[in-house]
Amino acid sequence: MSAQVYEKVALIGLGLIASSMFWGMKRGGLAGSVSGYARSAETRDIAREIGLCDTVCDSLSEVVEDADLVVLCVPVGVMGAVAAEIAPLLKPGATVTDVGSVKADVIAQVGPELPDNVHFIPAHPLAGTEHSGPRSGFAELFDNRWCLLVPVEGTDPDATAEMRRFWEGLGANVDEMDAEHHDLVLAVTSHAPHLIAYTMVGVADDLRRVTDSEVIKYSAAGFRDFTRIAASDPTMWRDVFLTNKDATLEILGRFTEELFALQRAIRQGDGDHLFDYFTRTRAIRRGIIEAGQDTDAPDFGRGARGK
Amino acid sequence: MSAQVYEKVALIGLGLIASSMFWGMKRGGLAGSVSGYARSAETRDIAREIGLCDTVCDSLSEVVEDADLVVLCVPVGVMGAVAAEIAPLLKPGATVTDVGSVKADVIAQVGPELPDNVHFIPAHPLAGTEHSGPRSGFAELFDNRWCLLVPVEGTDPDATAEMRRFWEGLGANVDEMDAEHHDLVLAVTSHAPHLIAYTMVGVADDLRRVTDSEVIKYSAAGFRDFTRIAASDPTMWRDVFLTNKDATLEILGRFTEELFALQRAIRQGDGDHLFDYFTRTRAIRRGIIEAGQDTDAPDFGRGARGK
Repeated sequence: MSAQVYEKVALIGLGLIASSMFWGMKRGGLAGSVSGYARSAETRDIAREIGLCDTVCDSLSEVVEDADLVVLCVPVGVMGAVAAEIAPLLKPGATVTDVGSVKADVIAQVGPELPDNVHFIPAHPLAGTEHSGPRSGFAELFDNRWCLLVPVEGTDPDATAEMRRFWEGLGANVDEMDAEHHDLVLAVTSHAPHLIAYTMVGVADDLRRVTDSEVIKYSAAGFRDFTRIAASDPTMWRDVFLTNKDATLEILGRFTEELFALQRAIRQGDGDHLFDYFTRTRAIRRGIIEAGQDTDAPDFGRGARGK
Repeated sequence: MSAQVYEKVALIGLGLIASSMFWGMKRGGLAGSVSGYARSAETRDIAREIGLCDTVCDSLSEVVEDADLVVLCVPVGVMGAVAAEIAPLLKPGATVTDVGSVKADVIAQVGPELPDNVHFIPAHPLAGTEHSGPRSGFAELFDNRWCLLVPVEGTDPDATAEMRRFWEGLGANVDEMDAEHHDLVLAVTSHAPHLIAYTMVGVADDLRRVTDSEVIKYSAAGFRDFTRIAASDPTMWRDVFLTNKDATLEILGRFTEELFALQRAIRQGDGDHLFDYFTRTRAIRRGIIEAGQDTDAPDFGRGARGK
């Protein structure tokens, strides 16, 4: 079903997403050749050692030369700077995309830097693990996950269709969405939850009455899951919060309001309020399982995962 | 290595923990016979249908008759009422235990109800899944998990040693701890994280601008994990928060304080603060993996769990 979509693909940044894209392109035969670049010489050395990319380049000019698709896989905070550097080197008619978790800010950074004769089609694959770096990728990362395309006004429909075929070839389901809505949805489903998990893990670490070793030793269900989320790449997440500031702060405000109401119910002994709330949230889980975004297997660090 | 520890065991309440204990006792040959009781006739019918317990009883008096070990597996809020009912029926020299997630309150409820000629040894197995009910148990639930014993002042050491052998036979590692410390540690590692997850899922559900179906459809890493936690049994968790009120509210207060500091860093664009915080929390994850309480496999609803 898959077949070559682009003759030459350039990956800029060689972390979890880029390395998974490379292995996925190999699996699906989606690219004639793939070149890769990372700012860090150490990362480039690792890439060469493990065969990540057909060619590992030592400069941006080398990696984007003659590329039909250029994928920006760098932290959201530096997308604009990288775009400015590659802009004069791009092949006319090439497509530029990114994989950032925030879209409005990336479009504002990158869009003005690019020449008119290239297509800019922002994208966001909703996939990841708590691991990062060039060794962390695997071909199956995007299988049955969503990839959201956020085409800007006036984008060539053929270039968008090509991009869609590319992500479908990587195993993803593709949807289109506008940037502001994307950023709000992601603030709810990903950005605010990550900040909350980071916070809770930080609080546990701070409590001197509960020694570190006890927190770790007895890390039960809830907390253990939080630590997994809170192990995600610090640079990536710093940039996500700084660039999706408004939506994240809005959701966190709502969260705090709700948390205060539940704290008050606990303090006042209002069991009915708590019971009703917990019953409602349980139903949402059911919806996620039915939507095929998770399995019903008991988990909590046990079973399939724990073994 | 395992061998019979108690001649007759009575399970009161037949949910996830009790049913897992039954299958674990069978696996390890830990009991001569096991009788079980649940308040709901429907639960008793299911238990009979699936062979849960050697005898399913229709009354408390029947289930505790001649039992050497009586295990209270009911929500924390009704432990005292059940203890009062069974107190006159207990065999002299029997051991009574519970599996509640809160210990000080349970000891205060149950202790005064029991006659002097039985041993009361509160316990808390740190194990669970988001599923509940008589069908949700499995023999491996306690394998390599901790079970905390919280013996009260003056408990017979032989009875405690027996209890310890019993839980070790179920696969658990056993530690002893005093009740107040237990409740604080659990507030950090389990109770507060659960309330936070419940809250975030409730907020997502409330947001009309982000339709339910979108939240579910695009439920990425962070949120999906929260929904799993927030699918846990509502009755059990209502009682946990109401009976471990002080410790939970203390930890939530700390959490809110820390969250506000991070929100301020986002608002002010203080990337260094965020980066340092996220780097610190990542190290805690490493400690949990090294302590053997989780694996290093990439997860987020994918890989082993997702397949």
